[in-house]
Amino acid sequence: MEKIKLSNIKYNKDGLVPVIVQDTDSLKILMLAYSNEEAVRLSIEKKLAHFWSRSRNELWLKGNTSGNYLKIVSILIDCDSDSLVYKVDLDGKKACHTGEESCFFKEINNE
Amino acid sequence: MEKIKLSNIKYNKDGLVPVIVQDTDSLKILMLAYSNEEAVRLSIEKKLAHFWSRSRNELWLKGNTSGNYLKIVSILIDCDSDSLVYKVDLDGKKACHTGEESCFFKEINNE
Repeated sequence: MEKIKLSNIKYNKDGLVPVIVQDTDSLKILMLAYSNEEAVRLSIEKKLAHFWSRSRNELWLKGNTSGNYLKIVSILIDCDSDSLVYKVDLDGKKACHTGEESCFFKEINNE
Repeated sequence: MEKIKLSNIKYNKDGLVPVIVQDTDSLKILMLAYSNEEAVRLSIEKKLAHFWSRSRNELWLKGNTSGNYLKIVSILIDCDSDSLVYKVDLDGKKACHTGEESCFFKEINNE
């Protein structure tokens, strides 16, 4: 897989990049969150998923209150360099604050 | 899986919601794009992935120029109702405009 540097990430006007979190083993999509440059850098350095909380307007180490830390296995970036995937080792944890494994547990059904 | 209506989607201030596209068979993440209300409604009605192009500022039927239409199998929504997953039937097609199957073919490596 082609390797590129952290400095290549293109952030939105608000300084954030959307991050898809995917379990490396099951390939389940766990959540979508946003990161700024510091959160991505810390995710690489500490090997734990960091984000920027848009609601609390602060750096967010996932698991810091719940204990559900997400171990970073690798970080992928898309062809336009403006979206990321954190591949994580879920390790039996729950990614969603509701207690579900994944935040995507509802389906749209407009009938 | 819990079912919820289209009208429950919470759009960002710009009227868009981020959409992760995932292949139903391989579970590979193919791309991240954005949809407005019309694009989501059309994706459900036509069973083909529609988005809102932020660069061209117009409704975008994926595959309309390339032929690489993405068939919608289901649409998931997250716990906060502000992110979607289009589960699609890739059917041997390439999701990325570069010719790669997935847009996520590069890895961040800051060493």
